[in-house]
Amino acid sequence: MSGNTFGTLFTVTTFGESHGPAIGCVIDGCPPGMTLSEADIQPELDRRRPGTSRHVTQRQEPDTVEILSGVYEGKTTGTPIALLIRNQDQRSKDYGNILDTFRPGHADYTYWHKYGIRDPRGGGRSSARLTAPVVGAAAIAKKWLFEKYGTTFKGCMSQLGEIAIPFESWEHVPNNPFFAANASLIGRLEDYMDALRKDGDSIGARIDVVAQNVPVGLGEPLYDKLDAEIAFALMGINAVKGVEIGAGFRSVAQKGSEHGDALTPEGFVGNNAGGILGGISTGQDITASIAIKPTSSIRTPRPSIDKNGQPIAVETFGRHDPCVGIRATPIAEAMLALVLMDHALRNRAQCGDVKVDTPALR
Amino acid sequence: MSGNTFGTLFTVTTFGESHGPAIGCVIDGCPPGMTLSEADIQPELDRRRPGTSRHVTQRQEPDTVEILSGVYEGKTTGTPIALLIRNQDQRSKDYGNILDTFRPGHADYTYWHKYGIRDPRGGGRSSARLTAPVVGAAAIAKKWLFEKYGTTFKGCMSQLGEIAIPFESWEHVPNNPFFAANASLIGRLEDYMDALRKDGDSIGARIDVVAQNVPVGLGEPLYDKLDAEIAFALMGINAVKGVEIGAGFRSVAQKGSEHGDALTPEGFVGNNAGGILGGISTGQDITASIAIKPTSSIRTPRPSIDKNGQPIAVETFGRHDPCVGIRATPIAEAMLALVLMDHALRNRAQCGDVKVDTPALR
Amino acid sequence: MSGNTFGTLFTVTTFGESHGPAIGCVIDGCPPGMTLSEADIQPELDRRRPGTSRHVTQRQEPDTVEILSGVYEGKTTGTPIALLIRNQDQRSKDYGNILDTFRPGHADYTYWHKYGIRDPRGGGRSSARLTAPVVGAAAIAKKWLFEKYGTTFKGCMSQLGEIAIPFESWEHVPNNPFFAANASLIGRLEDYMDALRKDGDSIGARIDVVAQNVPVGLGEPLYDKLDAEIAFALMGINAVKGVEIGAGFRSVAQKGSEHGDALTPEGFVGNNAGGILGGISTGQDITASIAIKPTSSIRTPRPSIDKNGQPIAVETFGRHDPCVGIRATPIAEAMLALVLMDHALRNRAQCGDVKVDTPALR
Amino acid sequence: MSGNTFGTLFTVTTFGESHGPAIGCVIDGCPPGMTLSEADIQPELDRRRPGTSRHVTQRQEPDTVEILSGVYEGKTTGTPIALLIRNQDQRSKDYGNILDTFRPGHADYTYWHKYGIRDPRGGGRSSARLTAPVVGAAAIAKKWLFEKYGTTFKGCMSQLGEIAIPFESWEHVPNNPFFAANASLIGRLEDYMDALRKDGDSIGARIDVVAQNVPVGLGEPLYDKLDAEIAFALMGINAVKGVEIGAGFRSVAQKGSEHGDALTPEGFVGNNAGGILGGISTGQDITASIAIKPTSSIRTPRPSIDKNGQPIAVETFGRHDPCVGIRATPIAEAMLALVLMDHALRNRAQCGDVKVDTPALR
Repeated sequence: MSGNTFGTLFTVTTFGESHGPAIGCVIDGCPPGMTLSEADIQPELDRRRPGTSRHVTQRQEPDTVEILSGVYEGKTTGTPIALLIRNQDQRSKDYGNILDTFRPGHADYTYWHKYGIRDPRGGGRSSARLTAPVVGAAAIAKKWLFEKYGTTFKGCMSQLGEIAIPFESWEHVPNNPFFAANASLIGRLEDYMDALRKDGDSIGARIDVVAQNVPVGLGEPLYDKLDAEIAFALMGINAVKGVEIGAGFRSVAQKGSEHGDALTPEGFVGNNAGGILGGISTGQDITASIAIKPTSSIRTPRPSIDKNGQPIAVETFGRHDPCVGIRATPIAEAMLALVLMDHALRNRAQCGDVKVDTPALR
Repeated sequence: MSGNTFGTLFTVTTFGESHGPAIGCVIDGCPPGMTLSEADIQPELDRRRPGTSRHVTQRQEPDTVEILSGVYEGKTTGTPIALLIRNQDQRSKDYGNILDTFRPGHADYTYWHKYGIRDPRGGGRSSARLTAPVVGAAAIAKKWLFEKYGTTFKGCMSQLGEIAIPFESWEHVPNNPFFAANASLIGRLEDYMDALRKDGDSIGARIDVVAQNVPVGLGEPLYDKLDAEIAFALMGINAVKGVEIGAGFRSVAQKGSEHGDALTPEGFVGNNAGGILGGISTGQDITASIAIKPTSSIRTPRPSIDKNGQPIAVETFGRHDPCVGIRATPIAEAMLALVLMDHALRNRAQCGDVKVDTPALR
Repeated sequence: MSGNTFGTLFTVTTFGESHGPAIGCVIDGCPPGMTLSEADIQPELDRRRPGTSRHVTQRQEPDTVEILSGVYEGKTTGTPIALLIRNQDQRSKDYGNILDTFRPGHADYTYWHKYGIRDPRGGGRSSARLTAPVVGAAAIAKKWLFEKYGTTFKGCMSQLGEIAIPFESWEHVPNNPFFAANASLIGRLEDYMDALRKDGDSIGARIDVVAQNVPVGLGEPLYDKLDAEIAFALMGINAVKGVEIGAGFRSVAQKGSEHGDALTPEGFVGNNAGGILGGISTGQDITASIAIKPTSSIRTPRPSIDKNGQPIAVETFGRHDPCVGIRATPIAEAMLALVLMDHALRNRAQCGDVKVDTPALR
Repeated sequence: MSGNTFGTLFTVTTFGESHGPAIGCVIDGCPPGMTLSEADIQPELDRRRPGTSRHVTQRQEPDTVEILSGVYEGKTTGTPIALLIRNQDQRSKDYGNILDTFRPGHADYTYWHKYGIRDPRGGGRSSARLTAPVVGAAAIAKKWLFEKYGTTFKGCMSQLGEIAIPFESWEHVPNNPFFAANASLIGRLEDYMDALRKDGDSIGARIDVVAQNVPVGLGEPLYDKLDAEIAFALMGINAVKGVEIGAGFRSVAQKGSEHGDALTPEGFVGNNAGGILGGISTGQDITASIAIKPTSSIRTPRPSIDKNGQPIAVETFGRHDPCVGIRATPIAEAMLALVLMDHALRNRAQCGDVKVDTPALR
């Protein structure tokens, strides 16, 4: 185990490199008896896959998933579910002088120092392409959570560079390439990205995710708190540099009389908690927000060093997302879903099946 | 395992409740042969303990630690190190009507829903008192990391409510009750807290932590990335609602040409990365920042409900920190130290002993 | 984590050395709401404790247990349960020349090589005294399993050296110092042990353990099979050199037509399986048998070497069990109980609460 | 995680069913920089694969392995290594009336009760076919251990039914279909198996395995002792009912003066310990022995029940090993190798790189 398994009871072990023969994962701990086929997984992969607009990488990958095990006559059997995605559009030659140099802001330098060897083709293991198997695994988690508790997941981009994207409606999200919950700003976002691409530069973004109809009682204090696990999951996504739960950094300037969400017989008043108190879900919406840094691979030449410590200018060719945040929404949803799935199983291990008829507040 | 163990190879399993007979922990995986006695641990506990100024809870706890195992003739033996801290100043009667009601913003409600039972005395297991054993355990981690790599840990409060606290010098930190790295603002902070206490309210804070002289190569991609683990550790501290690594949420508005820290033969230019690239330490300072919400237990009456779902006003007596952020600095340092210690061992498991003479950049 | 935690969901983390200030453990994952006090645990510790007959070590340890956490108003809260047992009768001076030499058959040599340091007082961490906290933890597991499923545990010595002890009745077990399920052989066993003690030698034993009323469905194939976990648990007891499940080594000479227990509407015919098929419990009695080697610490001088590799004769004084197998019965029961408890929780995590009304065979 | 991952630091997560599209595994934690290709793995798979003599199942599976990840330009990179083996010779129709009935001695009954669903084709996940990915993973472990420490693994059948097979020489093992270390008995073993096959019955076996040139110091007391882990690994192999380390069950009748292997400057005298003391390797040969029950699937009709609890006679057609013990030798070696590999990494995590130049005894 060197960190390639996510989860405690619902575990996802991934493998693969950006330009190797295949990527995939093994999901262990899935409850038996759930209807499952590739058709349940492919739509989530399609939301994430590259090449769907001019604002993302032009690499052409259908990301077609094959279930290799764990399903018999259309139902999960309780044994490991292996997902396989063959890579189709490798173009290793694009990677020019990065073989022996380190791109600023990129994992090149640290992989080389840690392992003494690295696969430079498309970032190898550190590529955001490796989020595909996780999105596939999370499709299974989402399905189970929905069937069991009615839990649903939503996400949207709430800021692109300096441009704040005010929330209007979830309905807008699937209708634009940015996962923006706002229809009127799309033109401005497209212009911004077009200009950026022309400059050969990249930009950061902020993504919000929400889980609704979450059972009360998920999370294991002290250390495997639900918010701690969500922070782990979201900070682990490529390029994420910050995570907030509920009021997040706004809490710093809040008073206790303002921050603490009052409880009434009709429900909580407000959700500064982001749906989590003491590390355990309250039953309210779980809300989180993440900061995504600008893509490290840019066409603009940058000063760096080579393996021998000599100065060199690095210029990246190849195909890259000018804003990795654009495709990050389904990934963030996926990570949140995996955390909730894992804790749903952990909770019923210790506390028995969640009593959904408990008169919990919403 | 229901979440009370922190770490993978250097593990800390804690136990205890705020007003039970004792709190403590078992540390497993400590390398053998290191000089260790209570004198190495007590100073860290003293930095965190309550009752040291009028701005924190007045509960009187010496937090005297006893080593029960794992040390023979003053040296660690490689077997588990158990730390025991007897509680001295329990006053359960202070907790008034919270026995059957739920304080807004507090774990009362979720513990009760999850477990069907809760220890209401001082918040039971959810009390920030439970950070003491972790601080004790981290003293051991800090010692080993310093002896092995020269790694050191520092932290300070950088904002109290609306008051930003600009960094001046680490030297100021031990000389004021706020862990502020700024001498000129102390009077203002004291006045602010005095007024707040009079109002029976509480306030949030922001804490910064830094690890210096960190070996390059720590962190296990894909999922147990160093930044993901730090986010997990810091978000798991009581009352934390947000975590940033390096540039954090500032990354959202940065361009790639600005964010990516250039590499030169003399070292990195800038540290937007916060010392971590691709989930692996670069050897630069590791920098993180956290948002701490205002204390949930305030004297101001708040609307809530009781166990039967009936409306009731909750007023908290007892002794509480009006700003839990004030004592959070040593706790944040501790969590960061535990993460680095764990990954130092994980790294040498897979990759062999870290080559500190590698000409890594700083 | 260097191996001092047992279990996956119901975990027991132990600490302590034979002649240190205290031994104990932290139990994590216990379901909430179960009535629990020291009175539930002490009787199991009393069955295991030394000094109860002339055939075991004369060290006087009351093994009084204190619950430090996890119980509120007489019920488990779902938080970690810490058990503390203070050592009372340390006599470190007894250990003569073993400080710098290695007793044949003992852990002295390997601890020294592994850690570069060892606590020689009474074997330190490798002492069978460290089974006490496990027996305490298992008392909690036994209670929960009995209340939930009616599961019970029994064990007996079935062979002492060359003397086979045919099973007569479980009723005899508590009435003799050997945990023999046979009343007529007790005199012979006592004479045998008296002679052995006079010779300053030691002897091996075989212990059988049984769990009854086990739910069908416990065990996680492929690797965490119930029989694999039981083998792990029992082989990990001090001095155990062999483990059998069901027919054990008799299976080698059996034909398939003889070994496979037939299923009938009235139940299984025979139990060569030992209650486990494919790594999962069948609902039949789970039966296991272990081989315990003779105590390594004997008064007879033995050739050995010292730390410098020089030849030396080792003679052990101090107080030792001439047959560690004599007190092993409650320990073997305890380990079996911990495995079943852990798997009961694991099973309900993935598969939901065990349907005890399923018409499973017995 | 429902038990399909083996190991703590060098982990193998397997997937697949006997008659599904593919079987395989993901190996995580492999040290970087080791030369590796399919040619290092295929020979071990060939030793285990079916159809190589008339005494084993006639299913034709080339068991051709494909490395999907973790290797770049012929060297391990430290990232997960995925192995894929496509199933070629599925014949699901052979399985006749076992779809709704339970074969005595087989996992049919328990899988159905645990999961409420089972893949009946060739035993699904419970098939011994699932040992193939483990054997593949162990080839990597064996290679690393040999290159690092010179460690080697050997195994042989030491008993087939009533026929003891005295050890003569390891040289005989690859030259007969039984992995017997004895040339003169081969004719008798072949006759025995021919008669058994004619009868439609099956038989048990005993397998011995040895690891040589093992570093001193591997094993994590208290619970993850090396012998406990080996017992776990070996008992987890399909059909194993007993495990011995060193003297095993012979220890029961041994005296301490006889069992404890004396230490001399020239080395240990004897190896009753089986190379392990106090759960830690001594540097001597590690020796273990296992009992394998007769194959559960036999052509002779057996009484059983169907899913509704009604009596029925079960007769198994299809292709089965009449003695699963025959192909068990490479599997037992593989499991032993995985345990040692895992503990080599665990040991260097806590204690630093094993000092092979320590003057340890052999």
